Amino acid sequence: MSDLKKNKPKGALVAFLGPLGTFSHAAVDQYFGIDAPKHSVATIDDVFAQVEAGHAQFGVVPVENSTEGAVNNTQDCLVDTSLQIVAEVVIPIEHNLMMREGASTTSIKRIVSHRQSLAQCRGWLAAHFPAVEKVEVASNAEAARLASLDPHTAAIAGLRAAQLYSLQVLYARIQDQQNNCTRFLVLAKDPVPPSGADKTSILVYAENKPGALFRILEPFDAFQVSLTKIETRPARDSVWAYVFFIDFEGHIEDSAVRKVFEQLQGRTVKIKQLGSYPLAKVSA
Amino acid sequence: MSDLKKNKPKGALVAFLGPLGTFSHAAVDQYFGIDAPKHSVATIDDVFAQVEAGHAQFGVVPVENSTEGAVNNTQDCLVDTSLQIVAEVVIPIEHNLMMREGASTTSIKRIVSHRQSLAQCRGWLAAHFPAVEKVEVASNAEAARLASLDPHTAAIAGLRAAQLYSLQVLYARIQDQQNNCTRFLVLAKDPVPPSGADKTSILVYAENKPGALFRILEPFDAFQVSLTKIETRPARDSVWAYVFFIDFEGHIEDSAVRKVFEQLQGRTVKIKQLGSYPLAKVSA
Repeated sequence: MSDLKKNKPKGALVAFLGPLGTFSHAAVDQYFGIDAPKHSVATIDDVFAQVEAGHAQFGVVPVENSTEGAVNNTQDCLVDTSLQIVAEVVIPIEHNLMMREGASTTSIKRIVSHRQSLAQCRGWLAAHFPAVEKVEVASNAEAARLASLDPHTAAIAGLRAAQLYSLQVLYARIQDQQNNCTRFLVLAKDPVPPSGADKTSILVYAENKPGALFRILEPFDAFQVSLTKIETRPARDSVWAYVFFIDFEGHIEDSAVRKVFEQLQGRTVKIKQLGSYPLAKVSA
Repeated sequence: MSDLKKNKPKGALVAFLGPLGTFSHAAVDQYFGIDAPKHSVATIDDVFAQVEAGHAQFGVVPVENSTEGAVNNTQDCLVDTSLQIVAEVVIPIEHNLMMREGASTTSIKRIVSHRQSLAQCRGWLAAHFPAVEKVEVASNAEAARLASLDPHTAAIAGLRAAQLYSLQVLYARIQDQQNNCTRFLVLAKDPVPPSGADKTSILVYAENKPGALFRILEPFDAFQVSLTKIETRPARDSVWAYVFFIDFEGHIEDSAVRKVFEQLQGRTVKIKQLGSYPLAKVSA
């Protein structure tokens, strides 16, 4: 249990990317508890807007490996937002074949799911239901909803969707590749203090010169601050050719991190601190 | 016109991510010409498999900013493939509101599109059709197909989809943000020679040590080879904690690039050359 979770204000509302029954929903339940007040919104932008406007105290958005909206959207929102990242949640992506109560596999006429989920279960589907029609729908939650309406339709979705639509899971964990995780960020208005095992995300704007990235990384090497992720994004403002998303181990209040930031001042056009937050424990 | 396009074997087949009418389809038409023999497949993995098996001579997959399947899929496929990247295609993402011939905006009861496309046109939709129901479907092409069946349904999709389903475009370029592009890669079995203005993509495996990335970038700085993109991906094999996707300017046969590779040998666990190919010209 993180400090954030323990210290979460009673009744604080969590906004997340819907529909209900998606992996985003599962991430909210895992992190804040199944009874936490929450509401789903239609887009990643809306999650940010809800928290920025104070309509929700926390927001949860996918940031890696997601079937639910592009990670690029989350990155674009991070560029513009005043919110802080206060936690990360990593959940395993597990797909299940589910149908209405009482329906049996012999009656399956079609299997519905999000395109990416169908792809992630392709080997299993080819082995078990080679002749059944596969139909792509907008989300796994929508797939589960469709299965709840028709005894001949099976859905591939997560357990949260099965619960939501009272479906029975006929086959669990049918994804071809195990250990596939999605990472979510928890957003809030105020930063969180060091937990002892933290990670920091920053956004760095640099000029379009050979070696620009190299000079940005030098201070991290000098003070032995370990990078965990780096990603370039095309800048929307054409003046700065580079925007880097950088994650590293440590909290913004650590002395080594402060020294890195001092050295970065002269080497970058702008640095935006996105937040320091506890490293996620990956749940089984 | 690129060398590849001029030299494309007559009748060579192109595999791309379907359904027909998506931006992937538009990328194929733009690069290979509208009359090029092509066939669509269901997943990004299938595009790679078609070319690897020789069922198609070229494959086209989205690699950045796509509504059509996750970029992560393409990256995972690049890790495993023996194919080379032989070109990149950058196309502007332009959304249009379209309906059946003869239908008018006053009869619109619902607007259907891919979730991300709806999000990209949100401001425009709020200004023009605030009260009309928005429905998410699996792809923009599916949206166009639905609009072709029902005079009360309008679709948001690209021009290629309008042509394919004989829809009339009522409003063109309705996306809130202009200059939004998607990048596609063209894949083939054999590499292409230098064109004079090339780019190279490599995959670098490094050990999980602080400063690992820094030491990888040093040779690029030393020989003034300009990085255009860098991205970390979690390695699927847990032994190597880091996998980097790196794009830089230059061709694998350039002398500066050869020197960078020589220096990289002792600093990395493994380097995989994904291909050298002409820099894309962004079309208007």
